[in-house]
Amino acid sequence: MIYMGLDTSGRSASVAIMEDNTLLYECTLNTGLTHSETLLELVHQALTQCHLTPQQVDVWGVCSGPGSFTGLRIGIALVKGLSFGSNAVCAPVSTLEALAFGLPAEGTVVSALDARRGQVYWAGFSAGAVPTRLTSDEASSLDCLDEFVENCKKPLFFVGDGAGLCYNRYDSIAGVRPCTPVQQCCPASGVCLAAKESYAKGLCVPPAQLMPNYLRLSQAERERKARLEGEPAT
Amino acid sequence: MIYMGLDTSGRSASVAIMEDNTLLYECTLNTGLTHSETLLELVHQALTQCHLTPQQVDVWGVCSGPGSFTGLRIGIALVKGLSFGSNAVCAPVSTLEALAFGLPAEGTVVSALDARRGQVYWAGFSAGAVPTRLTSDEASSLDCLDEFVENCKKPLFFVGDGAGLCYNRYDSIAGVRPCTPVQQCCPASGVCLAAKESYAKGLCVPPAQLMPNYLRLSQAERERKARLEGEPAT
Repeated sequence: MIYMGLDTSGRSASVAIMEDNTLLYECTLNTGLTHSETLLELVHQALTQCHLTPQQVDVWGVCSGPGSFTGLRIGIALVKGLSFGSNAVCAPVSTLEALAFGLPAEGTVVSALDARRGQVYWAGFSAGAVPTRLTSDEASSLDCLDEFVENCKKPLFFVGDGAGLCYNRYDSIAGVRPCTPVQQCCPASGVCLAAKESYAKGLCVPPAQLMPNYLRLSQAERERKARLEGEPAT
Repeated sequence: MIYMGLDTSGRSASVAIMEDNTLLYECTLNTGLTHSETLLELVHQALTQCHLTPQQVDVWGVCSGPGSFTGLRIGIALVKGLSFGSNAVCAPVSTLEALAFGLPAEGTVVSALDARRGQVYWAGFSAGAVPTRLTSDEASSLDCLDEFVENCKKPLFFVGDGAGLCYNRYDSIAGVRPCTPVQQCCPASGVCLAAKESYAKGLCVPPAQLMPNYLRLSQAERERKARLEGEPAT
């Protein structure tokens, strides 16, 4: 089985190919260039280096959210296009779950993405080779994490581009660990591992059913909603 | 500061670029192709994607051993060539240390590479964002790890392409954890992180002084030694 994983939910773009239990290729680019310029070339390089064609991919895993709305659309649109012509299935993967797959440690992992507007996207997992979900994916202000962070099993590792924000708030709590530069990016190998779990559980979908999961309203939708309700947008 | 990290010590080839504390690019190829065919292209892709030239790299980190003798020579020779024309310095990085930098967890990390002939290359580290070395790099039979594995702080994580061998032997000991497909490869981001530590400690060398650290004699040297001693090679 060939699994292709893509992440374009944040600043970095990441692409990986796994064959059964072996990671064949992984590439992560974090230079701040737009994914619309770099992603197709990254996918092309990945397939070329592994001597594969898009038709040979069995499962296309892609981060379906949360994350940058535009970024998610770029990744999902490309996966829809490349998988549509073959018999492949798609695995929509939570960005937060893919991050947790990247850190098979002991204790607890909180995946956190900077959601701007004073919020983070976050979820808690019991760490392990296959992380166990402890919370659903949330979009909330940082203080909504207080209770979880205080009560969860330690050590606690923060991963994702919101890890620094969290660590700054909670570093005085015993057992809370900082993350490394590597753990700020979502590794596409984590997307492959999560996609493999999804496939085993029968949770994959055909390309047409692959949809983003934004977790909150877009700016345009918020503004329209506020206008209809006669209140200023927040 | 721009750090370029390369690993060609095993089956996989990995290349990464870090700018100060930010990982800009990482690519790992694990298809079994020879590094002499793939490495220069991987380095070229890394520099191109980051809009850098070889002259802009300040520190060239490279796995200097242990590992495949031919693999180490390919990586070191390329780094010598690319760094020679600039004012860059080179950081020879222990492959086992680079692996430990890839797993900033809690407890202990044993980095293990399959050294064939019934041996592993291995070293133990106290896990963390900057791992602390607990043993020197060793080439020994697996049973030489028994004492360390039994007495070290748990949880214990095995990483590297010898992790499976170790886990099969020690999985009945409480607190011993299996590794994921990702942790079998040496990530070049770990090489960058180790090179950054080396640079901060003043341990970098000019290109001409970059040398491999094989840890044991090559087959040709073993056979010559045995012949001179009048004994069959082992």
